[in-house]
Order: sequence, then C-alpha cells, then structure tokens
Amino acid sequence: MTILARLLSPDDPTPRYAQIGDGLRKQITEGLLPAGTRLPASRALAQDLGVARSTVVTAYDQLVAEGYLEAIQRAGMFVCDIAPISPLNAPPPARSTRAIPQAGLLAPGAPDPDIFPVQPWARCVARVARNTPSALVHQNDPFGDPELRREIAAYAGRWRGITATADQVMVTSGASAGLELVMELLVSDGHLALEAPGYVPTQRFAKSRNWQVNWMPVGSQGTALPLQPSKVTVLTPSHQFPLGGSLPVPVRQAFLQAAADCDGWIIEDDFDSEFRYAGQPVPAMAALDRDGRCIYVGTFSKTFSHALRLGYLILPAGLVSRFRTALTHPGSSAPVTAQRPLAEFMASGQYDRHIRRARRLYAQRYGTAADALQCWPAEMGYFQRHEAGMQIAFHLPPSQSDQALSAAARSAGFAIRPFSDNHPQGSTQGLLIGFCQSQPELISGQMEVLRNVLESCKDSDN
Amino acid sequence: MTILARLLSPDDPTPRYAQIGDGLRKQITEGLLPAGTRLPASRALAQDLGVARSTVVTAYDQLVAEGYLEAIQRAGMFVCDIAPISPLNAPPPARSTRAIPQAGLLAPGAPDPDIFPVQPWARCVARVARNTPSALVHQNDPFGDPELRREIAAYAGRWRGITATADQVMVTSGASAGLELVMELLVSDGHLALEAPGYVPTQRFAKSRNWQVNWMPVGSQGTALPLQPSKVTVLTPSHQFPLGGSLPVPVRQAFLQAAADCDGWIIEDDFDSEFRYAGQPVPAMAALDRDGRCIYVGTFSKTFSHALRLGYLILPAGLVSRFRTALTHPGSSAPVTAQRPLAEFMASGQYDRHIRRARRLYAQRYGTAADALQCWPAEMGYFQRHEAGMQIAFHLPPSQSDQALSAAARSAGFAIRPFSDNHPQGSTQGLLIGFCQSQPELISGQMEVLRNVLESCKDSDN
Repeated sequence: MTILARLLSPDDPTPRYAQIGDGLRKQITEGLLPAGTRLPASRALAQDLGVARSTVVTAYDQLVAEGYLEAIQRAGMFVCDIAPISPLNAPPPARSTRAIPQAGLLAPGAPDPDIFPVQPWARCVARVARNTPSALVHQNDPFGDPELRREIAAYAGRWRGITATADQVMVTSGASAGLELVMELLVSDGHLALEAPGYVPTQRFAKSRNWQVNWMPVGSQGTALPLQPSKVTVLTPSHQFPLGGSLPVPVRQAFLQAAADCDGWIIEDDFDSEFRYAGQPVPAMAALDRDGRCIYVGTFSKTFSHALRLGYLILPAGLVSRFRTALTHPGSSAPVTAQRPLAEFMASGQYDRHIRRARRLYAQRYGTAADALQCWPAEMGYFQRHEAGMQIAFHLPPSQSDQALSAAARSAGFAIRPFSDNHPQGSTQGLLIGFCQSQPELISGQMEVLRNVLESCKDSDN
Repeated sequence: MTILARLLSPDDPTPRYAQIGDGLRKQITEGLLPAGTRLPASRALAQDLGVARSTVVTAYDQLVAEGYLEAIQRAGMFVCDIAPISPLNAPPPARSTRAIPQAGLLAPGAPDPDIFPVQPWARCVARVARNTPSALVHQNDPFGDPELRREIAAYAGRWRGITATADQVMVTSGASAGLELVMELLVSDGHLALEAPGYVPTQRFAKSRNWQVNWMPVGSQGTALPLQPSKVTVLTPSHQFPLGGSLPVPVRQAFLQAAADCDGWIIEDDFDSEFRYAGQPVPAMAALDRDGRCIYVGTFSKTFSHALRLGYLILPAGLVSRFRTALTHPGSSAPVTAQRPLAEFMASGQYDRHIRRARRLYAQRYGTAADALQCWPAEMGYFQRHEAGMQIAFHLPPSQSDQALSAAARSAGFAIRPFSDNHPQGSTQGLLIGFCQSQPELISGQMEVLRNVLESCKDSDN
C-alpha cells in the first residue's frame, strides 16, 4: 500500500509508534484512508516497516482510543467513519464520530463542549433579542448587567453558601481580569502571598508588577498559613490548583482571622467548586467570612464556556464603592452580548440543571480515570482521590522528570501538563491528567496508552 | 423655597455656579422639582443665595444645555420632563428626554449609543440563535469565527484599501488586547517607538514591560520619522491620537521603508478612521505596505460598541503562523457570543449602512462644535479643522494649565480631558473635546457654557 512510504522517516526523532500513528491519522483525516478501509494486520505492517510488532500495536491502540480505528473481532482493523475536521465547514459531530478535542486527549481542566446545552442557551439569546434587544448592546453599569448580578448573587447563595446582594457582584471579562483587578487595587505594599505550586497566570502577574511574593507551600494538609501573613493572600481553597485538595475548615478560618488581624484581604479563586463528586461541599471562605475580608472570584469558563469570557467578583460590602471609583470606563468592561441571556438562563433553572448534569457525567469519567490510575504500578507514582475537579494530579517519584514525561505524552497526542511548571522552583513533580472530554468507555483505553507512553519514555525508543 | 437651603455649602471648594447647578440637577432627578415647576428668576435667586446674578445665570444655562430646564420667553425658567435616570428600571429614553450621558458632556471619543441600530442587530442575533446556535457557543479557532474574519477582510478592502484574506485576520478581545499581543510578540530587543503625545494605555504597557521607548514628537506635519528607527513602531496615522492630524502619504511610505530596511514592524492603530467628514480617505498604511511589515489593528468599539469587546488584527501573511503558534489557548480568546451575529450584520450591509449614517450625524455635530470653537477668543487657544474623528484637540497657550481647566470643566459636568496626560513629559497642553453624543441643536449651548467655565477658571470664584 502506498501509505507505507510516508509513515516513517529515519531523520525524525519522534518515537516510531508516534510517527506511524501520526501518519495514519493524517491519512484518515485527509480521506486517503476512507471509512471502512481494512488496515494490514499489525504483524504484516510491522514486517513491511521493519519495526517490532509492539510498535505497530501501540500505534493502532492509540488510534482506536481516539476513535479513528476499530478492531472487529476475527475481521481485522478498520477505519471508522470520521467527520472531516475543518473549522470552516464542519457540522457539529454526531456522538459516534466525535471530533478529536483540539487541545489533545485528557486535557486538564477542559470542559466537554458536547454537553453544553446549545438549544436552551440559544432560546435564551433569542428571547432577549425579541423582548429586550437593547440589553444585547448597552450596559452602562461598570459592574455589569443588574439582572445577571442578581442571578449570580442568588447562585452563590445556593451553591456556595455566600450571602451577598447584586450590589456586591461585579461581572468581569473572564475570571483572570477580575483576579488581576483585585490584586491591582488591593496590593498596596508590594507584597502578596501565593500558593506554591499554584496558578501560573497569577504568579506571572505578580512578577510583572515586581511584587515580593510570600510563597505558601502546599502540603498534604493543603496550603500552609504563613507565620507572617501578607496583607493580600490568594487561595484556591475549594480544590487547590494544581494539587487538588480541599482546604480544611479550621485552616480557612485561621486564614480569615489572620486577614482580619492585619486589615488584610483573602482573594478566593473558586474556579471549579461545583464539581465535587463525593462528600458534602465545603462552604466558600466568603461564606465563613464574618469581617468582610474575603473577595470571591468566580468564573463561567468551567461550568459553561471559556469562550463566553465572563467571570465575576463578589466583593465584601465595604469594598464596593472603592471598586466602583476605580473603574474608569463608564460601561461594563465585560462583553455585553451574553450577559442578559445568561441571567435568563440562570433564572430559568437551566444553569443549575446543566451543572448537575455535567457533574454526573464528570463524576463518572473521574471515577473511570481514577480507577485506571490506581492500577498503575506503584513505582510510576501516586495520586490522591480527591473526588473533585477537572484534573487529577499524579505525583511522580523524584527520579522522574515531569517535563520529559509530559513532552512524550504530548507527542502521542495527549494534552497532559507537568505541574513543576506551577512551582516557582519547579519542585513538586507530577502530571495533570484531565478526563472531562473523554467518553467513559474510551477512558480506560486512553489511560492504557498513556501508561505505555510514559513507561516507554523511561527506556529508549523501541 | 426649601430648595435654597441645600444649594450652597460654605465649606465646599467647588465653584458656586457648580454647586447651584449640581443641587438643582439632583432635586430635579429625585423628583423634588417636578416637571413644569417654575424656578425663581435669576436675580431673585441670586439675591436669596447671596451671590452674583451671573453665577445663577451660569448654573441655569448649564441645566438648559443639559436639557433639564427650558426658558420660556416672558414666562420664566421651567423644569423639563425628564425620565428618571435609574439603570435598573429605565426604559430607553425617548428622543426628547435623553438621559444625560453617564460619562459627562462632550466626552472625547465616545460614540452615540442612541444611534446604534438595536433592532437590526437583534435580528442578526436571533437569526444565529435559530439557524446555527452552536456558533453562539463554540469557537475552536484561536483566530476567531471564520465567517467574521471573512467579513472583516472584505470590510478592510472596501474601507481601507487593504488586501487580505480571512487567514490573516485575528479577532481579539477589544483592540487593546490585540495591540498588546502584537507588541508582546514583536518587541524582541526591549525597544519600541511611540508617538508623543500618544495613546496612554500603549505607553503604560511599554512602561510595565520596562521597554526603552523611542519617543517620536508629533508636530504640524504629523509624527516625525526617527533618525534611528526602532524595530517596532506604533502609529495612529489616520487620525493621530490625540492631536488629530492625518499622516501624509510620503511620511507613511518613509516609515514603511525604514521598517523594511531594518526588518522591523509598523503597528497601525486605526481606531476611528471611518469618521472622515471631508476630503478623500487616505489608504491605510497596511494598504501601502509592499514588504509585509505592517500589522493593522482595528476595533468595533467606535463604530459599533465598546461593550462588544471585539477588535481585530490584520497580519502580514508572513506573521500568521508565528501568531498561531503563540496562542496557547485552543479556542478564540475573544468573546464568542457576538462573533457570528456580527459577521451576519456585516454581510447583510447593515454595518456599512450604520457607519455611513453615524458618519453623517457625527459630521454635522463636528461642524457645529468646530464652528463654535472658531468663535472663541484667540487668546483662549487654537485648533485645526481636521474634519475627522470623534474629538477635537484644542491647544492652549503656554500660560494655561490644561489640568486645571479640565478639572474645572469636569466639576461642571463635562467629560473633556487634558492632553498633557498623553505626553510623557506633559508638554503639549490642551483639551480633548468630544461631540458625538450631543444633539446638534444643543452643542452650541454646551460649548458656550464650556467657554464660560474655562474663562471663569482663569479668574477667582465669582
């Protein structure tokens, strides 16, 4: 078959199972290997290519896991019916021919776009277009649409135990814009306490402002309260990013007390708290806050869509006028078009319904991924079953380089990331493994391929 | 009348005409002075308050200009019918009772929200919600919606003479995000050439990155080409911000040649070029660019709405893959909801129609404002009739402080700004005066009040 000529290149440093997999994938997506084509048996192809049979098996397994090939018992390996992947003219993929996630497989923190309730959302948009079209265009309040702020306040009460009014809510252009605004306004002495490991954009922002960072190590008990607290502290208490634990309530209270004692502030970055799969949700720090020291940062990127570019702040009442004064632009800084439709979507109960559905689906996928990880050999590493969030933090033994392992995984089509990136000194080695975008029946297969890739990486190319 | 008791406070440093005006305005908007109430004659009120009659006249004139009061000949001064200004429940104001612009009167660069074609826009949104609802939600291309990019490329061809394909267009989260991305990617040697005076957010961005800025003075011939060109140069050639001139074509070509000679880049920030009221539009530098050195930065904030948070880049073909590689997030970084509706709006011809209509209206308002300014005494300052843009740059004599004058104007309810703010050394003193949001029949009156306020500022309080 002419396909063979293009599958391997001796000068290419990419592992051969990856070259073969890439080459076949390309030919399938370009239509050179149409649906229903029967591929050579692994032994035959291996012989033709001059490689070990296991190399071809790994490549074939990868493409089965991705949905390009299917093995039909006693008949052979066949090319699946795949929709062409072309952003310009692709209809939304049917469930059986899911387009491969653009970011790669097992992408940490990536929500499943296919479960987004497109029709109910479109109906909310159409309703606003029909009844209050000016709400699609004008938003004179710098804090954003009042209806949306009312819904967010109600939502925060229902889901996070926070008591707040619409006046305390500010809609922002994604959560990061909100987080940056808060840090900008509150850091007055050039000092800031951040988690290590933590969230890279926050670390970069502090660095770009030349602030002195008080690094708080994250251990098995969560983030450590510093002996000398800073006036401004950023935490991810619900589901520490990236290591995943929930900050125990006594520690939350200790942080809040320390802030009250020094007239300081806690910035609570609560980005995927809805996705807890077992146990009771712990109330947000903003719900425990008696002294008005806690600023809550929320986002719609994980529960709804990153593409919406909407997040929000819930400010203690004492900070509201200070933030209003600081906003120089007369209108909302957050994009206006989706605000009122989102308010309607939330008011109708659709948003809560969607979150509960997503939580069920993600719980199932989390369970499958965690079960698979528990079968990995102990020498590969370990993880804790936090039963929450949109990624699993898999810790590696000190002898392993998470950078090398994740690079190998990326060339095999995985989007997993090393979490030494999240630590200022690069300590805490491990891999962030997602699962939300994968069909549950494919997760075990994908985890198997990942495991093989990681184990192969430790040895030389086969 | 009980209103008198609250109009003046001896401890308040605000000029008395402003205290009286503020106090009356507040009572009117709070309903304490209902529509149709006849106010005291200026002589009588002045006597009661213990101030000069001209002080009361100035206050009354201000409120007439703002539409709160009307002087009925031989009958007196009456309170107008004003819609309550409450963002939570205000219906869109009818033309005769326009809400006062939140930013203040004569705000430079502020488009008129009332001329926005709300219904046609809402129809485009509803159409997308009906026919291609997933386009409201998903956008996997980091460069943004392909249909919108096609429309932008066509638009740039029609309006700016630029030849580009959809592939060269990137939709950004407002123009500033695009501008910052370009600077971030292209400034490799820590040097950048910027106009002085120029656009403050760009100057701040360069400062925050600790870049060495090569300041290009802007004179009567526009921006001066530096003897030692920097590798990256940011220009506003269409309508220099803030001084307003159009960069002559030979100078544009000289800048482009200098960039070609040093493998450098020109970043063309073309923010309100559609609003040219006389003469032929000069093609964009990106249209004159033969060597692929020019990156065009466009925005929808002035022609459409700042609240949309959409702008775009038109990249030379040679930079496309570099930018694609640099974008780490798999989907569009610009808010998705409005992208496809905007593409439809542009494809239907509505967008061009709206721009031409806005241009006609703004031309009329520009003319009235410029005519009024030409009647100001020569010793107050001067300006050039550029017949373009959304603000007029009024230069002050060296003895005047534009900071003091604009502060006085702001306490009288004007949103004009000093352009010494736009210069790194604060040289080039003057005021940026807008006009787009004002009804043409009110402009002369507003300009008269402004003139009085500025002339009064030079003397002590009366």
